[in-house]
Amino acid sequence: MFISENLGVNHLGNLTICGADVVDLAKKYGTPLYVLDENLIIKNCNRFNDAIDKYYNGHGLVCYASKAFSCREIYRLIKGQDMGVDAVSLGEMYTALSVGFPAKKMHLHGNNKTIEELKFALENNIGRIVVDNFCELKDLNRLAGQMNLCAKIILRVKPGIDAHTHEFIKTGQIDSKFGFAIETGEAMEALKLALKLENIRLKGAHCHIGSQIFDSRPFALAAQVMAKYSKDVKDKTGIEFDELNLGGGFGVKYTQKDDPLECEEYVKAICLSLAQKCREYGLKLPFLIIEPGRSLIASAGITLYTVGNIKTIPNVRKYVAVDGGMTDNPRYALYKSEYEVIVANKANLEKSEVVTIAGKCCESGDLIGENIALQVAQPGDILAVCATGAYNYSMASNYNRNLKPAVVMVKDAKSRVIVQRETLEDLIRNDL
Amino acid sequence: MFISENLGVNHLGNLTICGADVVDLAKKYGTPLYVLDENLIIKNCNRFNDAIDKYYNGHGLVCYASKAFSCREIYRLIKGQDMGVDAVSLGEMYTALSVGFPAKKMHLHGNNKTIEELKFALENNIGRIVVDNFCELKDLNRLAGQMNLCAKIILRVKPGIDAHTHEFIKTGQIDSKFGFAIETGEAMEALKLALKLENIRLKGAHCHIGSQIFDSRPFALAAQVMAKYSKDVKDKTGIEFDELNLGGGFGVKYTQKDDPLECEEYVKAICLSLAQKCREYGLKLPFLIIEPGRSLIASAGITLYTVGNIKTIPNVRKYVAVDGGMTDNPRYALYKSEYEVIVANKANLEKSEVVTIAGKCCESGDLIGENIALQVAQPGDILAVCATGAYNYSMASNYNRNLKPAVVMVKDAKSRVIVQRETLEDLIRNDL
Repeated sequence: MFISENLGVNHLGNLTICGADVVDLAKKYGTPLYVLDENLIIKNCNRFNDAIDKYYNGHGLVCYASKAFSCREIYRLIKGQDMGVDAVSLGEMYTALSVGFPAKKMHLHGNNKTIEELKFALENNIGRIVVDNFCELKDLNRLAGQMNLCAKIILRVKPGIDAHTHEFIKTGQIDSKFGFAIETGEAMEALKLALKLENIRLKGAHCHIGSQIFDSRPFALAAQVMAKYSKDVKDKTGIEFDELNLGGGFGVKYTQKDDPLECEEYVKAICLSLAQKCREYGLKLPFLIIEPGRSLIASAGITLYTVGNIKTIPNVRKYVAVDGGMTDNPRYALYKSEYEVIVANKANLEKSEVVTIAGKCCESGDLIGENIALQVAQPGDILAVCATGAYNYSMASNYNRNLKPAVVMVKDAKSRVIVQRETLEDLIRNDL
Repeated sequence: MFISENLGVNHLGNLTICGADVVDLAKKYGTPLYVLDENLIIKNCNRFNDAIDKYYNGHGLVCYASKAFSCREIYRLIKGQDMGVDAVSLGEMYTALSVGFPAKKMHLHGNNKTIEELKFALENNIGRIVVDNFCELKDLNRLAGQMNLCAKIILRVKPGIDAHTHEFIKTGQIDSKFGFAIETGEAMEALKLALKLENIRLKGAHCHIGSQIFDSRPFALAAQVMAKYSKDVKDKTGIEFDELNLGGGFGVKYTQKDDPLECEEYVKAICLSLAQKCREYGLKLPFLIIEPGRSLIASAGITLYTVGNIKTIPNVRKYVAVDGGMTDNPRYALYKSEYEVIVANKANLEKSEVVTIAGKCCESGDLIGENIALQVAQPGDILAVCATGAYNYSMASNYNRNLKPAVVMVKDAKSRVIVQRETLEDLIRNDL
């Protein structure tokens, strides 16, 4: 009935998440409010972990791409699942380490890591640094030398596959700010340099082909391309990769139009293609890393708002305004992303209207969505925007000097705050 | 030579802002760094103030639209210019009041003010509440009654003019989340209700026709429409407006393609049109409020970055990566906004390349701009992005768990921090 499997309706006609009445959550914690379902996050983690076990004999590691949603509690949760983490900044590494996340299970990404980030990663024994470019490779060798360390790296390469949602192309997708292109010979050149550098230990390669992909074939293709690259590397240098990190990009269901595969299907396609090609090329099976972010957490989240004024413009449209907007969810402003929206206290009623959901920012583009089917809303109603677990809190701003909402985690129908609501004092803390 | 009048080149070939060497600023305060020029902000304030004096006998008030850039120090500065402030949230009101900004010179805006914001505005005697909709009007009357106060309001109306940069149309621009439409009779209906409500004191009306407008005619037209509305109000109710707030939207120069008018020209057009129509309609001259935001501060700011890796993709493009990006300047990601960019330590050299400036976020869309003319950049160079004083710091996020940069103010070539750089501790302050 709803877009996410963890949503339901209780006897009061109210929307529930993980068994908790969201109208109660709104009353208890205030709005706007991010709500996450711990049970579903864990279920999603298990789906990926189980798939690696089933199709790759467990010879791999699922690393949560934490840029999707990052705070201390999420790293605790991922640690509890014996998973790894993909971090993209000093801030993410710091947050993960602050709750004792094992550094060796972390991969540091980034097209332009700062010297400070590289030093921090080396000092803290971050498991792998995913080297993006020549400049970084040389900086890292120099820094590791100064620190008397050996930097364990994998190389980010461009497999030449560009996958977007419903389509993919296998042609020179070399116009990216990320990584070394295989087809131009750059990836081989980087590899040879890495092998020469004294303080670098090369463990493998990484690729990432896109986001919100609904088809398993581009993943299978990427696995094949990476196996072929591994073979070429072995042929030319005698070196065999210990591991391959094939990134993420597994699609999730935001609206009824979206039709993603089960997690297992993506992983199966990757594992089977990789294993087959490795056999064919006489390569040992590399340790396999995958990096789901959105697909672990998007569907586990909802955002709750209180409806304020409703403005009907005859023959034009009806605006339903909420007490948040592009500051807590910039995805419509950025990408025209669509969401399912529900009047949480009327979740049992039919969606009999089509409305535009407006935020409270002084900016015309501050909308949560246009032409959205909705129950008839009134001021004071609680609105739930579904599947906001990823790239909402993590992209939030203080535009208009609005405060970032709290994040509440629900487990077995019980709720707790995991990130406190910002305060007015927080706003001016760094102001002189 | 440069896009903003406050930029220059010193004997070292380095870019200067307000006489300060920006390479020195980058060294002293680190990058990314927002830099503002206090002298230019004050000059811009004077331009608007002087224009109101010259063309309207000083019978008005320039209110800074602080959503463009808000922090404690900017409210101190605006207070020092005897100006008013346009605030759009609890956070902006709170920040302004925290430095003793006179509440009576503040106008509170918003299409969906919360009850908390309305209460706060009433408690703190905010000068005017710009009422957007019927729901708010009734809430405000009720709250003011409970508090034994009288709410001083003006009504936000839609004048039916839609102006964008180079064009404007005078047709039913009634599809907006903001305000009451004049042409549908809604604005008159709201006015009649406001006059009836016991705890509401109506002072006038407000309109705002768009952003980044390069032509004075739509402003003149809006003034005429508002004068006509004032006349209709007088004819139908006998009430004459004390004041009109005609908003902002005055264009600024981001690139050489932009050709805005002098501030004075916009104000002149508004004042002359308004005065002429008031004479024609036999109306007293209303107190005039205008609300420049971008035009007061955009050109006074620059953002400094350090260049990291440079990636040349043969026959495709050259990426110059910096240590910031969409987290400190989301305007390219949001609107494809264009900027002038300068290698600050090579500001005397010719721009001999065309490059794409990439940010450090793990997101393909994280660019500062594409196909930008630039001096030949090398890792370690300091890059200055010009005219970033508005809607950059105010829209900044912690996406990728990046830290918000510091803001430095330069006055008479001397610099001081006005907003401290965020720390890693700040990132996890609200995390449990």
